[in-house]
Amino acid sequence: MTRSVFFVSDQTGITVQTLGQALLAHFPDAAIERVDIPFIDSLQKAEQVLSRIRAVAAVGEPPIVMCSIVDDELRAVIKRSGVLCLDVLETFIAPLESAFGMAARHQASSTHGSPESGDYEERIEAINFSLAHDDGVDGKHLAEADIILIGVSRSGKTPTSLYLSLQFGIRAANFPLTEEDLENQTLPKTLLPHRNKLFGLSIDPMRIHRIREERRPGSRYASLPQCQFEARQALRLYQRLNIPHLDSTHKSIEEISTTVIQQFGLKRRVF
Amino acid sequence: MTRSVFFVSDQTGITVQTLGQALLAHFPDAAIERVDIPFIDSLQKAEQVLSRIRAVAAVGEPPIVMCSIVDDELRAVIKRSGVLCLDVLETFIAPLESAFGMAARHQASSTHGSPESGDYEERIEAINFSLAHDDGVDGKHLAEADIILIGVSRSGKTPTSLYLSLQFGIRAANFPLTEEDLENQTLPKTLLPHRNKLFGLSIDPMRIHRIREERRPGSRYASLPQCQFEARQALRLYQRLNIPHLDSTHKSIEEISTTVIQQFGLKRRVF
Repeated sequence: MTRSVFFVSDQTGITVQTLGQALLAHFPDAAIERVDIPFIDSLQKAEQVLSRIRAVAAVGEPPIVMCSIVDDELRAVIKRSGVLCLDVLETFIAPLESAFGMAARHQASSTHGSPESGDYEERIEAINFSLAHDDGVDGKHLAEADIILIGVSRSGKTPTSLYLSLQFGIRAANFPLTEEDLENQTLPKTLLPHRNKLFGLSIDPMRIHRIREERRPGSRYASLPQCQFEARQALRLYQRLNIPHLDSTHKSIEEISTTVIQQFGLKRRVF
Repeated sequence: MTRSVFFVSDQTGITVQTLGQALLAHFPDAAIERVDIPFIDSLQKAEQVLSRIRAVAAVGEPPIVMCSIVDDELRAVIKRSGVLCLDVLETFIAPLESAFGMAARHQASSTHGSPESGDYEERIEAINFSLAHDDGVDGKHLAEADIILIGVSRSGKTPTSLYLSLQFGIRAANFPLTEEDLENQTLPKTLLPHRNKLFGLSIDPMRIHRIREERRPGSRYASLPQCQFEARQALRLYQRLNIPHLDSTHKSIEEISTTVIQQFGLKRRVF
């Protein structure tokens, strides 16, 4: 029987949804229906959620509620449902109060950067920078990059650059390695002054072969020998020039991004 | 005195870092130094973290540890430090086991989509789609869009489209409103077949004036009367044509994205 899991938040709920996903992954045999309910920031809205919970409970298994609600009064409304209600903020606030030796201030502060916060502009600038420096389009302002991803076509440079800027506020450029670069085992000239910012992505030739075949079936670009040549030569280049690198074949965008941040000792500028 | 907060994870730590940020926002008077330690997936690495915690504790206030570690043995190593250690997975697994009536399976599964998971390709496709359909560049494949953001220049269309695709796997296009559209109070022709996918962003004229002044100081484009005209006419257009819309002036990218998802009844496809 399907179990409903309600993700209730007074803000976007993105954090509790993501944490919830990590938790539910431990119950692969449970049939789960996720219900995301963001922006519950008034008594009236909380009462509506209470009604929804009761309506589900009335006809089947009681739903499980994971929530993130700062206001005690609103949270109390949800809890009147009597179903399991795990609040990710409430749970950890008390031990942190003890550890810090001070009371928490329960202003409903925004988790994510609002336009009034300092890191908002930084984030938008980073996104614009990554877009402008995608795939080697602009080589003039690479001095302002925090990092520059290099790799063959379809090795994951663009999604990683965008993630780094959007999620962390890091100015990530990316630059393709051309066939000539790979053949001669040299870096594109534009990159030579920025050697210390380079991070290489390598990838399994079978995988780029498959991806490229979908885009340009039957082309030389997509052929397995070509993909094998590029993958091998790119890796050789990183090793020869001592460029930090990672095999992106089995990595999520988050894993590649976190590895880059760790490698260069960068810090998240945005949460 | 500065208190160190260690974010320790066997994976990227992005979830525990984000939750931690939300929690620490309740202690604005605490001087906090954040230390992100991802990929702690072996006994040896856990022992190294234990040493770091002890080293910090030896010379000052004991650090606080927030962690997300699936393996009981690794988590036990961290806990030998004796400092406050809040594990976001462990805390909620037991109540969920009771609620589901089954034991959790503690495989170290990836929180975020790895290339082997079904939603990885969907996510990459969504990112490519949003990039290809940024700022009205490609109007041919709008039928494949989940949603189309419209608005005047600098109202937040591009960051929101990218966030929707990258974070949620939603195919978000965006399209500018030209001066002619605004003057005539009509939609760009390309958008007419897609009326039911449109979402309008409006924005305070002072804010776009300020943003545009930084980019093209003294230009007509950046002038306050021009910004006032565009902002007023865009809002009028949304109201006249009954297009769902949101004032993005004081909203984070996450808030705008969540509102769009809610408005159209979309679901996150990626976590």
